[in-house]
Amino acid sequence: MDEYLKREHQHCFYDLPVAKQQVFLQQLKSDYRQILLNYFAGDQNLKHKIDLFINTAFSSNIPVPQIIELHMELIEDFSKQLKLEGRSDEVLLDYRLTLIDILAHLCELYRRSSCQ
Amino acid sequence: MDEYLKREHQHCFYDLPVAKQQVFLQQLKSDYRQILLNYFAGDQNLKHKIDLFINTAFSSNIPVPQIIELHMELIEDFSKQLKLEGRSDEVLLDYRLTLIDILAHLCELYRRSSCQ
Repeated sequence: MDEYLKREHQHCFYDLPVAKQQVFLQQLKSDYRQILLNYFAGDQNLKHKIDLFINTAFSSNIPVPQIIELHMELIEDFSKQLKLEGRSDEVLLDYRLTLIDILAHLCELYRRSSCQ
Repeated sequence: MDEYLKREHQHCFYDLPVAKQQVFLQQLKSDYRQILLNYFAGDQNLKHKIDLFINTAFSSNIPVPQIIELHMELIEDFSKQLKLEGRSDEVLLDYRLTLIDILAHLCELYRRSSCQ
């Protein structure tokens, strides 16, 4: 774990040109979308998907508000879809648990790598 | 901000004897309880209380799972109280937003102080 914590950023978000930042964000959004869709579905690969997402966010050093924004955008997309289908979007509130799960693990990873 | 990020822990959680860890946790729990109770009440000092809580958590380097545990314990306390009063505890789900708020800011603080 310590070795992992010390590794250099493989794709530091801020070092990418703007166009590549957008590609990176779209990939991260796609990964997070899969996590949300499978979070309550008993997916056996869920833990692996979450670990990958957290490690990608950590190693890219992406600002946390960007992750919150990805979450908000996806919830809005899901909400629009449910409303088009005439269904309540109340179930989407449960996905706050997914965000808490992601933030808690990412925060602990940064805490352990912190150089305070 | 950078100066703040570099400052040393004033009361590193792990360096405290167990009895003092408990006192520290009780104080942190009391502070977080005030944040929860005032989160949707339009308290003008809320932002200041949240900043203080986050800075205390950051400077003590307390493990993130301990913060999640504080949240769970308080929600359970509130739930018991509401049930005693014959009221629904569904409203407590909204406090997940408080935890997201705290974790997002704390995570960003650790990210900016990270020495990856």
